[in-house]
Amino acid sequence: MSIISGQRAKIAADIRAKIEAGEWYPTMKLPTQQELAAYYQVNRSTVIAALDRLKARGIIVSIQGKGSFVSNDSGNEEGVVWKELAKWSFYPKNKALVQHLNEWENDATLIQLSKGVLAHELQPKNAIKEALTAMAVQNVGFDYGDGRGDEGLRQALSVYLQEKGIQASPDSILIVSGALGGLQLIGTGILQTGSVLFHEPVSYLRSLTFFASLGIRTSPLDFAANHAKKELAKQSAHALYVNPTHHNPTGMTLDEGARRKLLLLAGKTRMPIIEDDIYGDLSFEEGPKPLKAYDRKGQVLYLGSFSKTVSPGFRIGWLVGPPDIVQKLADLRMQTDYGSSMLSQFVCRHLLETGTYRRHVWTLKEHLRERKDWLLGLLQKHFGELGSCGDVQGGFFIWFTFRKERAPHMQRFVTACHRRGVVIHPGFIYGEERQASIRFSFAFESLENMEKGLLQVRKAYDDQFVGE
Amino acid sequence: MSIISGQRAKIAADIRAKIEAGEWYPTMKLPTQQELAAYYQVNRSTVIAALDRLKARGIIVSIQGKGSFVSNDSGNEEGVVWKELAKWSFYPKNKALVQHLNEWENDATLIQLSKGVLAHELQPKNAIKEALTAMAVQNVGFDYGDGRGDEGLRQALSVYLQEKGIQASPDSILIVSGALGGLQLIGTGILQTGSVLFHEPVSYLRSLTFFASLGIRTSPLDFAANHAKKELAKQSAHALYVNPTHHNPTGMTLDEGARRKLLLLAGKTRMPIIEDDIYGDLSFEEGPKPLKAYDRKGQVLYLGSFSKTVSPGFRIGWLVGPPDIVQKLADLRMQTDYGSSMLSQFVCRHLLETGTYRRHVWTLKEHLRERKDWLLGLLQKHFGELGSCGDVQGGFFIWFTFRKERAPHMQRFVTACHRRGVVIHPGFIYGEERQASIRFSFAFESLENMEKGLLQVRKAYDDQFVGE
Repeated sequence: MSIISGQRAKIAADIRAKIEAGEWYPTMKLPTQQELAAYYQVNRSTVIAALDRLKARGIIVSIQGKGSFVSNDSGNEEGVVWKELAKWSFYPKNKALVQHLNEWENDATLIQLSKGVLAHELQPKNAIKEALTAMAVQNVGFDYGDGRGDEGLRQALSVYLQEKGIQASPDSILIVSGALGGLQLIGTGILQTGSVLFHEPVSYLRSLTFFASLGIRTSPLDFAANHAKKELAKQSAHALYVNPTHHNPTGMTLDEGARRKLLLLAGKTRMPIIEDDIYGDLSFEEGPKPLKAYDRKGQVLYLGSFSKTVSPGFRIGWLVGPPDIVQKLADLRMQTDYGSSMLSQFVCRHLLETGTYRRHVWTLKEHLRERKDWLLGLLQKHFGELGSCGDVQGGFFIWFTFRKERAPHMQRFVTACHRRGVVIHPGFIYGEERQASIRFSFAFESLENMEKGLLQVRKAYDDQFVGE
Repeated sequence: MSIISGQRAKIAADIRAKIEAGEWYPTMKLPTQQELAAYYQVNRSTVIAALDRLKARGIIVSIQGKGSFVSNDSGNEEGVVWKELAKWSFYPKNKALVQHLNEWENDATLIQLSKGVLAHELQPKNAIKEALTAMAVQNVGFDYGDGRGDEGLRQALSVYLQEKGIQASPDSILIVSGALGGLQLIGTGILQTGSVLFHEPVSYLRSLTFFASLGIRTSPLDFAANHAKKELAKQSAHALYVNPTHHNPTGMTLDEGARRKLLLLAGKTRMPIIEDDIYGDLSFEEGPKPLKAYDRKGQVLYLGSFSKTVSPGFRIGWLVGPPDIVQKLADLRMQTDYGSSMLSQFVCRHLLETGTYRRHVWTLKEHLRERKDWLLGLLQKHFGELGSCGDVQGGFFIWFTFRKERAPHMQRFVTACHRRGVVIHPGFIYGEERQASIRFSFAFESLENMEKGLLQVRKAYDDQFVGE
């Protein structure tokens, strides 16, 4: 038996075993030939041969242009139960491109020029190590705990937030599964079907689809515009989402005046504000305080997170709001997943209590500023004649905008970059109508890889313009 | 200044600061006098004096029979935004008693005779310590990761599940935030508004309210009854929730024949089954395999968890299902909270890979059996003449049922026990119509505390019958 026919037989046997064990159900669509080839690490021709063998035995069937399916040998329709259910779903699938970007972001062989994750070498590994060792020594037993999260962590956060000008006792703080987990809680626990969530014209929120599935409409609005108040007054039930500091994706920060105006606007239209401040700890220079610090009416629900400063893998963020609203959301949390990992909470608490977090953030900011300057220089060098980007005072991102006549076809451009081994996020996934911008991140890749990646992006750009 | 007036001034100043900082918003209801007294650790009279001081200054107002509120000094209705929003909410509040029980379960001064949590001394602290130390040494950097969860953990689970007769490759496994997180995902990602989720007549599911808020009706059904098939055939879209092994709350296990019948019923009515197997690793004797092991049509979504065997604080469980359904739910997870804590996943993976988990479960079962025998003996001794309970072969619970004429008024009985420092769960929160049973847990309290607690329960019972 040749190697090829041996592989073919092994693959056919493996697929058959999955089907016989019920792991793959009758009528289920098989992965594509390409996916199977990658999975079994063989050529596509070997996969085709294996599938032919299974077809010949009636174990699978192929439908022209649709793919291969597990045979429905029972002769009745019993097997189709999932087909039907898969159509149900409250949640629309991620938009196709966003889903691809999610996949590509987990591919370590690609250069990630837009990834909103702290480089592994910038995560405070020694501090985490210390915290883990401390936890190992303390010999703690764990419980489900309070729905609001570990009290010690909330106390430490209460002290930390005071330094940012936010007065919040532990009762006003809810530990959430990252800021996204907080948004999800607000969406299901407070906002209402038919309500409108307003956001900045270009916004991270635009790349999320779960609000729609909750019956909440998201709507872009320029809060600084004259017509904003009129627009807001039309709505009977609504809220406002804003990311005022080192904005994702544009990197911009609202100044103090704009913050006060925004609060005034919210006050007049009786509108709660969801303030997403996850990049707030990463200011290179002292900037304005969070909106929440100016809030005297308890109108702001404030979201923060360790995801951008320590590690996204911890899944620990916080929500600050009136204690009755916090209690309500905590109650909801106990109904849905019993709260956040106590291990992660313990580590974060340790980082805050020992002062390690503050020290880490201090040096982290210096590293990020250096990376920012480097990326900015590269962009000016390689893309300077094609468009422009403003400097930023913190966070992870630089927003590059092509001049109108120089803008590539974005969807094709992103795909071309991916073919060259580089992942970039086009502005339109954040709702940018002009489709002329790219979000670049200086947080994830090394200086060297940023340069290597950008050169490929430039080549992809040139290819597209030559090809057209 | 006397101590009292000093305390009074301090409390008044503290409340005033909260209001001025906007932490407590205009029109917000203050905590009750009792809650404030507990919070500030003073007598209620001191609280009343402090509130009077604030009232005199117009900072708060009291409404007869309704409590105290933060003054709405702005004179318009701006402050009421949260009042309105709080009425919105998709989620009904936890039923009042369940909410109280949740609170009481976090009160370390009470004896917990129903708590479904592993005693801290039974949690594998040394093994966790080893895993934490290993993690500290490995110096890992963390990412958001794959929506399905850490691949190494899914691989280790794949091997572990095979030992239980379940064939599941890593692609068929989704890491979830405990079995409850899995249920929540299924509810939002697969089931549909208007669908019916059937469950055993007495079921843990009954104590959850989130299905209702998703528009999913839960309906009790005796699956073994003759009319079950007819009942199920009436519904156009539905699923079935079952907890076949060491059932919560009754402790019962379905035998192999019943399992096969159930699968047949599901097959004929084209109904997916959600199998909750979180006590499945805790069988004192070898029992029947999970339903999923008999499933050849991929109809079963299988839920397991480390919450009952290692620690609920990790928030790590798993869902096994067809790979396309798993991918769909993973996609939803990336939309809502970016997955589970990588720290928790790492520890669980380490426990599985090193074989520590298996060894731990082995000794854990011996401890649980000893506690079970002890509690069973106590129940026979102190409550034998009032009712009965069957022996159980594993899990956490014993289900005690009063004889009809001896059953106390359950709501009052539970409250009376709480007053005596003991928490018990009445059967009716799990849908028991007769209201004659109590779920006792042998997993949480020490042997000594079980006895102390049960004596108080007996006293509460006697009081009630003497008092009536």
